[in-house]
Amino acid sequence: MDNVTVHMTGVLDPRGSWEARGCTIAQAMDVVGSRSAILLLREAFYGTTRFDDFAARVGISEAVAAARLRELVALGLLDKRPYQSAGQRTRMEYELTQKGADFFPILVSLMQWGDTWLVPAPVELVHRGCGAAVRAQLSCREGHHVESGEVELVARS
Amino acid sequence: MDNVTVHMTGVLDPRGSWEARGCTIAQAMDVVGSRSAILLLREAFYGTTRFDDFAARVGISEAVAAARLRELVALGLLDKRPYQSAGQRTRMEYELTQKGADFFPILVSLMQWGDTWLVPAPVELVHRGCGAAVRAQLSCREGHHVESGEVELVARS
Repeated sequence: MDNVTVHMTGVLDPRGSWEARGCTIAQAMDVVGSRSAILLLREAFYGTTRFDDFAARVGISEAVAAARLRELVALGLLDKRPYQSAGQRTRMEYELTQKGADFFPILVSLMQWGDTWLVPAPVELVHRGCGAAVRAQLSCREGHHVESGEVELVARS
Repeated sequence: MDNVTVHMTGVLDPRGSWEARGCTIAQAMDVVGSRSAILLLREAFYGTTRFDDFAARVGISEAVAAARLRELVALGLLDKRPYQSAGQRTRMEYELTQKGADFFPILVSLMQWGDTWLVPAPVELVHRGCGAAVRAQLSCREGHHVESGEVELVARS
């Protein structure tokens, strides 16, 4: 399957001549690369806002949920704000920021890969209105559909 | 940002009425959700095939590289086969399978999110031939562009 690799260009050819410093895949994994962080974000997209619900629906301890939610707020993926139900003490509510909302294609592509190669989930994502299945795909700004083997890695100018 | 959440439908409404058993996002994270596994896959897409190169280019110890590569082979994302350079002992070479190749949209969407919200990488992906920037996007099978707020979660029939 040689045709699936990315083509190295210019100063990036050959691969052995440079180090992948500043790789944003690595940085993104450092920031949100834990199972619990990813599943808390899933829950935020599923409309969950309350601390107790996050912990229960992800199936993690309250201590882990508290630590991860604090990180996601500190990193700016979730906003935290107080809310109060009648007769109850004030609690915290979490919702996605634009930075968090932009994480959605990562979740969809993980789900798609798992549905194809592991065990299909009992749920699926469809386009509201037309009802067609939703998928993550690669395209270029000219609108062409793109496969990995048609991609070049270039140094940013 | 209420409009970014996924709409629950049918037996999935409300979210509190069901448990996310069999979630493929969780399963995918269990399988390949470590920073080192993700970066080894990045390297495989960058054309790296040899064990020593994987360890050096990802910046991990040989012990960690060996363990993760073994997992990726066992999971079927990489194929391992012997190769021999003139006058050298036989070594192992790794390359992407279709299961591994299908992981590419996840890497691109992680890179895209990091480029937007962390620090832009010194490299970028372009479409070979037309030269336009490559991006991960959500669409439905009817061809419509889709945002997270336009998505419904439905139980698979």
